[in-house]
Amino acid sequence: MSIFDTLESDVRSYCRSFPTVFTKANGAVIEDEQGNRYIDFLAGAGSLNYGHNHPAIKAKLIEYLQQDGLVHSLDMHSDAKRRFLEVFDRHILWPRESEYKVQFTGPTGTNAVEAAFKLARNATGRTNIVAFTNGFHGVTLGSVAATGNDHFRNAAGVPLHNVTFMPYDGYLGEEADTLGYLRKFIEDSSSGLDLPAAVIVETVQGEGGVNVASWDWLRGLEEICNEFEIILIVDDIQIGCGRASTFFSFEEAGISPDVITLSKSLGAYGLPMSLLLMKPHLDQWKPGEHNGTFRGHNLAFIAAAEAIELFWKDTDFTRQIKRKGRLIKERLDAIAARFPEVGLAVRGRGMVWGIACKSCPELAGEVSRAAFERNLIIETSGTDSHVLKLLPPLVIETELLEQGLDVVEQSFEAVLSDRAFLEEHDLLEANR
Amino acid sequence: MSIFDTLESDVRSYCRSFPTVFTKANGAVIEDEQGNRYIDFLAGAGSLNYGHNHPAIKAKLIEYLQQDGLVHSLDMHSDAKRRFLEVFDRHILWPRESEYKVQFTGPTGTNAVEAAFKLARNATGRTNIVAFTNGFHGVTLGSVAATGNDHFRNAAGVPLHNVTFMPYDGYLGEEADTLGYLRKFIEDSSSGLDLPAAVIVETVQGEGGVNVASWDWLRGLEEICNEFEIILIVDDIQIGCGRASTFFSFEEAGISPDVITLSKSLGAYGLPMSLLLMKPHLDQWKPGEHNGTFRGHNLAFIAAAEAIELFWKDTDFTRQIKRKGRLIKERLDAIAARFPEVGLAVRGRGMVWGIACKSCPELAGEVSRAAFERNLIIETSGTDSHVLKLLPPLVIETELLEQGLDVVEQSFEAVLSDRAFLEEHDLLEANR
Amino acid sequence: MSIFDTLESDVRSYCRSFPTVFTKANGAVIEDEQGNRYIDFLAGAGSLNYGHNHPAIKAKLIEYLQQDGLVHSLDMHSDAKRRFLEVFDRHILWPRESEYKVQFTGPTGTNAVEAAFKLARNATGRTNIVAFTNGFHGVTLGSVAATGNDHFRNAAGVPLHNVTFMPYDGYLGEEADTLGYLRKFIEDSSSGLDLPAAVIVETVQGEGGVNVASWDWLRGLEEICNEFEIILIVDDIQIGCGRASTFFSFEEAGISPDVITLSKSLGAYGLPMSLLLMKPHLDQWKPGEHNGTFRGHNLAFIAAAEAIELFWKDTDFTRQIKRKGRLIKERLDAIAARFPEVGLAVRGRGMVWGIACKSCPELAGEVSRAAFERNLIIETSGTDSHVLKLLPPLVIETELLEQGLDVVEQSFEAVLSDRAFLEEHDLLEANR
Amino acid sequence: MSIFDTLESDVRSYCRSFPTVFTKANGAVIEDEQGNRYIDFLAGAGSLNYGHNHPAIKAKLIEYLQQDGLVHSLDMHSDAKRRFLEVFDRHILWPRESEYKVQFTGPTGTNAVEAAFKLARNATGRTNIVAFTNGFHGVTLGSVAATGNDHFRNAAGVPLHNVTFMPYDGYLGEEADTLGYLRKFIEDSSSGLDLPAAVIVETVQGEGGVNVASWDWLRGLEEICNEFEIILIVDDIQIGCGRASTFFSFEEAGISPDVITLSKSLGAYGLPMSLLLMKPHLDQWKPGEHNGTFRGHNLAFIAAAEAIELFWKDTDFTRQIKRKGRLIKERLDAIAARFPEVGLAVRGRGMVWGIACKSCPELAGEVSRAAFERNLIIETSGTDSHVLKLLPPLVIETELLEQGLDVVEQSFEAVLSDRAFLEEHDLLEANR
Repeated sequence: MSIFDTLESDVRSYCRSFPTVFTKANGAVIEDEQGNRYIDFLAGAGSLNYGHNHPAIKAKLIEYLQQDGLVHSLDMHSDAKRRFLEVFDRHILWPRESEYKVQFTGPTGTNAVEAAFKLARNATGRTNIVAFTNGFHGVTLGSVAATGNDHFRNAAGVPLHNVTFMPYDGYLGEEADTLGYLRKFIEDSSSGLDLPAAVIVETVQGEGGVNVASWDWLRGLEEICNEFEIILIVDDIQIGCGRASTFFSFEEAGISPDVITLSKSLGAYGLPMSLLLMKPHLDQWKPGEHNGTFRGHNLAFIAAAEAIELFWKDTDFTRQIKRKGRLIKERLDAIAARFPEVGLAVRGRGMVWGIACKSCPELAGEVSRAAFERNLIIETSGTDSHVLKLLPPLVIETELLEQGLDVVEQSFEAVLSDRAFLEEHDLLEANR
Repeated sequence: MSIFDTLESDVRSYCRSFPTVFTKANGAVIEDEQGNRYIDFLAGAGSLNYGHNHPAIKAKLIEYLQQDGLVHSLDMHSDAKRRFLEVFDRHILWPRESEYKVQFTGPTGTNAVEAAFKLARNATGRTNIVAFTNGFHGVTLGSVAATGNDHFRNAAGVPLHNVTFMPYDGYLGEEADTLGYLRKFIEDSSSGLDLPAAVIVETVQGEGGVNVASWDWLRGLEEICNEFEIILIVDDIQIGCGRASTFFSFEEAGISPDVITLSKSLGAYGLPMSLLLMKPHLDQWKPGEHNGTFRGHNLAFIAAAEAIELFWKDTDFTRQIKRKGRLIKERLDAIAARFPEVGLAVRGRGMVWGIACKSCPELAGEVSRAAFERNLIIETSGTDSHVLKLLPPLVIETELLEQGLDVVEQSFEAVLSDRAFLEEHDLLEANR
Repeated sequence: MSIFDTLESDVRSYCRSFPTVFTKANGAVIEDEQGNRYIDFLAGAGSLNYGHNHPAIKAKLIEYLQQDGLVHSLDMHSDAKRRFLEVFDRHILWPRESEYKVQFTGPTGTNAVEAAFKLARNATGRTNIVAFTNGFHGVTLGSVAATGNDHFRNAAGVPLHNVTFMPYDGYLGEEADTLGYLRKFIEDSSSGLDLPAAVIVETVQGEGGVNVASWDWLRGLEEICNEFEIILIVDDIQIGCGRASTFFSFEEAGISPDVITLSKSLGAYGLPMSLLLMKPHLDQWKPGEHNGTFRGHNLAFIAAAEAIELFWKDTDFTRQIKRKGRLIKERLDAIAARFPEVGLAVRGRGMVWGIACKSCPELAGEVSRAAFERNLIIETSGTDSHVLKLLPPLVIETELLEQGLDVVEQSFEAVLSDRAFLEEHDLLEANR
Repeated sequence: MSIFDTLESDVRSYCRSFPTVFTKANGAVIEDEQGNRYIDFLAGAGSLNYGHNHPAIKAKLIEYLQQDGLVHSLDMHSDAKRRFLEVFDRHILWPRESEYKVQFTGPTGTNAVEAAFKLARNATGRTNIVAFTNGFHGVTLGSVAATGNDHFRNAAGVPLHNVTFMPYDGYLGEEADTLGYLRKFIEDSSSGLDLPAAVIVETVQGEGGVNVASWDWLRGLEEICNEFEIILIVDDIQIGCGRASTFFSFEEAGISPDVITLSKSLGAYGLPMSLLLMKPHLDQWKPGEHNGTFRGHNLAFIAAAEAIELFWKDTDFTRQIKRKGRLIKERLDAIAARFPEVGLAVRGRGMVWGIACKSCPELAGEVSRAAFERNLIIETSGTDSHVLKLLPPLVIETELLEQGLDVVEQSFEAVLSDRAFLEEHDLLEANR
């Protein structure tokens, strides 16, 4: 028995799917202590958009450490934070004509979501938040109330309050007018829906199974929010920082959320960092009302600033992401087409893609296992873990990306030609 | 106007007390961009027990970065995590005969507290938590419900539930039997107190104004918890990791909490890291029920393991902390004795000390400002920020410590000889 | 200023619509102190199905009082209660092959609803209740959480918890599959809907604007409840006791709710009384867990038993109600047909009917006022009070009923020929 | 098996202590179907202060019924309600120089409490309510949150929120300064006590075990409420209407609560009725925000008005109550003195008295049973039902009262000379 087994809590999870001890990493490749090299299609669940240990960022971090740069500064001013703010303003906010105030919350996504909810509730004097089916926003008490999956909800140990769930785009089938439904509940003062302080939405639901909201739907949602003076929060923790091809995931929709949460890849090197963007009139905080020991993590500021300068000075990166995204889509479509009887659904945007199998939810997990045997790290998501989820680093070399996609295809092939599996899941017909 | 003023949220707080831009730091000294050097009696609000940028830890971090060690690993196995677990087991748990499982939560203190509450609620099937007056446990929704200060509570924007506050040791005056009071409420099934899943307590309330629970009181509290099968959670986020002289703050009380939260100085170099210790029978988590993107922050594992090896192999460090603690106490007592009419109260343990002025709460803030002018960084705490709080790095050199204490004394002197201040606060009499 | 104005709270409501002082009543006629006689189409908001002061019940009450029968008995046994139980068993439960236990709650509808929620939550160990848009179940804290109208919700002064609203039959338009929607939310463990302890439903939503659930919809709802082991509560407080023509409102649907709430006309003579019926396995109460000072109101037992014997020995009464109901429908349809441009919608069942005007919500109130001038008491209901609601005593003589319906028609006529009103509400076109 | 056993829910409670079927009642005597006559020291749990079936009130009720007086009127004006208001104003409010608005809530005590909480929360914009240990205010969701006994609390099936319990007068022993404790929690913004909208208090806790608050304590409580602008609610449902000798229970304390709840004996004849009195500036209701089908129960208005005219025109009734109260106290003191070793505590005020046995909680129940065998109905109260509670009708004839007290004494005698009981409860020593 390893020390992980004897000492670590049963709550650990990813190590069960990828049972080896990792040591090093670089770009889209991660290595274990036996020297096995894996292509990483997980990318820290979206935290490693710029790959592992990007050399230019690494150099900056080492330089900063060597010169005894201030590492921990609470919310005091530091030159590292200033540089981040300047770079973020110059390359992210200013070109997009986005006027936002920046709040550094505790360095986790859920902390940014909790801060967003507080802000919205205090600014409006209302308590309710509208969240969407299959949404994931974190597991601290405020955030988990807005998280759909009962795996997380039940763990809270108390009933969850002050959030109402509405159907996400496509949740009730292609034709259903989910926004019309939301509007009806808001307009009708007898619907039982308490007028919300805010709506929180992911433009693509990563944890929820790679569900993609259309630009039209997002625009319609913004319209409803504006009409009823509801604060629109876009949770861009997983899908922001380029995952959907533009820095903010919603840029092509042309919407302008009141509040945006960022984390995961923001810290650029896998370093904990989160922030909240809010329209200036919403910045109604009193000093110190929301705090956190690690809200001034200067290594993350250094890495984040460098990444923004490296990747977001112009639109090249976006073009690359789109190109690679199309490549992924083509390959996945081909896989789905190879096994038409299984009923695989391909969906995604930018470089977040899912291939879902409703009829046999276990398929995704089985393919993930087969892929790991073939040195590809790839996870599942969705209600029943029925969606194989592709989240490669955005910087992955095309060749590696194609290798990874080859493994995905081989893994489907392997699983879907395994008689025992097919029989167990009534797929024999399907694969003929 | 600096970019901090134009772009950062009004929520920022410490930068208002210490208005300069910091750049570098080393040990107990922190430097701003004008080259001013400050003695740091704040120590990242308890996150820098081993000082800024400890050279041995720095070397390990740079080495790890240079060799492309895995930085971000979710909860997958990594050799950095294994090393941390081994070192933590060998030097912390094993010598104390403490049998605990370890859970890496999201890397903030509040996340560990939220996980502790979930655990306690699920393990007992109860929902209520008993917390104490003046306690501070974080600002996410679950934790802030257990935090006493209405500055944080009101910011939640929703009523806070499932926590009952009981008087902390000494809260009702020296003679009051606060434990007897708690017992009465628990024993009496008509008291209106719902039998709690857990009691959460800090052995010294840092944010609450440096209130110190006696060993007897802590033992009595454990007794009550055992008797009524209530889970005892010690929140050692600020006071653990040696602040109270031993690694866990409660060791001299001889108690054995069911659950312990650690963060802040655990990451050793100001790096975000948190963990939960729980008695093995309480480890009832299902895989992934509580998660978090940054729960596998390997730089923190590297730093934390190194710090434990450096400082906790034997009891030397504890002896040093005690010695410095006595020095601090003596100097503060002397200050209190110099201004008897002001009514200063000195309290603390290990190397966390407070000097409180009930009659003139503004005094502490004024002394903090005067100290900053004299290049000492020192904060206030307590309900009305009426307690000057000394939290120097545990590794501070004795000479620097004495210099800092000199500045504290000079600052009291300066403020208490300022006629305008004395008049405004009716202290003219006092200082005669 | 009358003593009502000076002494009574501003919360009073019906007296504003019907501003006179009433003194006597008999059957469907109510009299004020000036001797004016009004036809009563309000019937105590459904509490006077057997009319005011039914002579046979009156005789029983006077007899009971004269012989010093026990009036107030908490939940001790009394012969009056025994007689009620026997009669209720013989004429109501037994012929319908309904096996239920009977709980006498505090004598108000909301008290029965609160008891039903407790029962469901304790029996299932779950906390959530599914209620429906436009539902009304009372205004105490537990019940108002399940009441849709924000007029009542906002008055609570605290956020309302542990209830999720789902769309009622027809709420999203004729074609929308509201049950499919509910099923989707229940089946999908990531929908954010916590599996409910119970579903509470009115078969016709009286306060909500006379919305009628189809028998198919009710059967489908029962099916979902059975499939997922959710307790089905039918709130028959307003629509039970014959209002929908059968004693229980759902008899023609052929469903068998787990829990039924009754009140209003149960006490027969306008006397406060409520009860809960529950399937025997749900009777998990410990003695006295739910109590109430007036749960043994013997005058109400006397009246209720007498009414059941008078009206529910056979199916005659149901036939009469259906006949009168058809009469009402015909007359309302005729009114709607006379003013096609106004867009009046007629709906109802048994002897509860509404005539709604979506385009001009004020019309219903105006017609109610015009009717009161013509000595008819008739109220409005629905979100914007846009539905004129007919709730005559079930025992009303056909002639009186027709007179009342004449007044309704005359009142529409009067309002819709009032140029000022038409202009103000853009109805000039409509009435041409 | 009787129909009660087969058909009625297990929730029934009093019928277990007093297992017979009652039929008639008059004054302080209640009769069962075997013709047994019992002296009633329960008085409908305080609902029958004027005795059963008072002849003058009976006459009025029969007269009203015979003339077809309006029985059920929602909140429309009726002459019966007007008469009640006039009489209540003339004999209750005016002589006490009390300026209050009157709200008729649903006719149960818990409904009045729920309305009081709404009012206080909306008027202050705060959500928290301070209630006291051992308090009882009803079992609907809002009220039960303020009820201390976990027998009722646990039945709610959901965690109870927005109420904080503070120690009642004497709860922590004679010397403890419970008001100082409350003040400390309110004054200290870090206590974790959210500033309450209201404090709710019973001047004598009936259900809680006949705990008596001193006049000084009540005055001190009012002072705190005034100082911090907290609404003071006196719940006079059980102890008002003369039980404590004056109409309102707090008159001798000289306080002026902001809100008062009345019910139980208000309806005079055991008829359901409740009201809320509120200082005029608190009457911030919008029409119909709090409603209830039976808030206009005219039989109760008739009975209540008559009772007020009969008993509250002058101070005679108060003098009689005090005299009888002294008699009760003397007899109970004598009983306590007869069995000094048992440690009986006598407490009460006016005509509500308790005799408690902390060391042997079962004693009270045993004495109650022994008394029932001797044709006296008397209940227990308090956390462990350890208090024998005397609540005779206020109008009881002195002779009957003495007979009842004789039975109490005989019952103590019988139980305390029962060797088996004494042995089982280690009271052999005690009774020697």
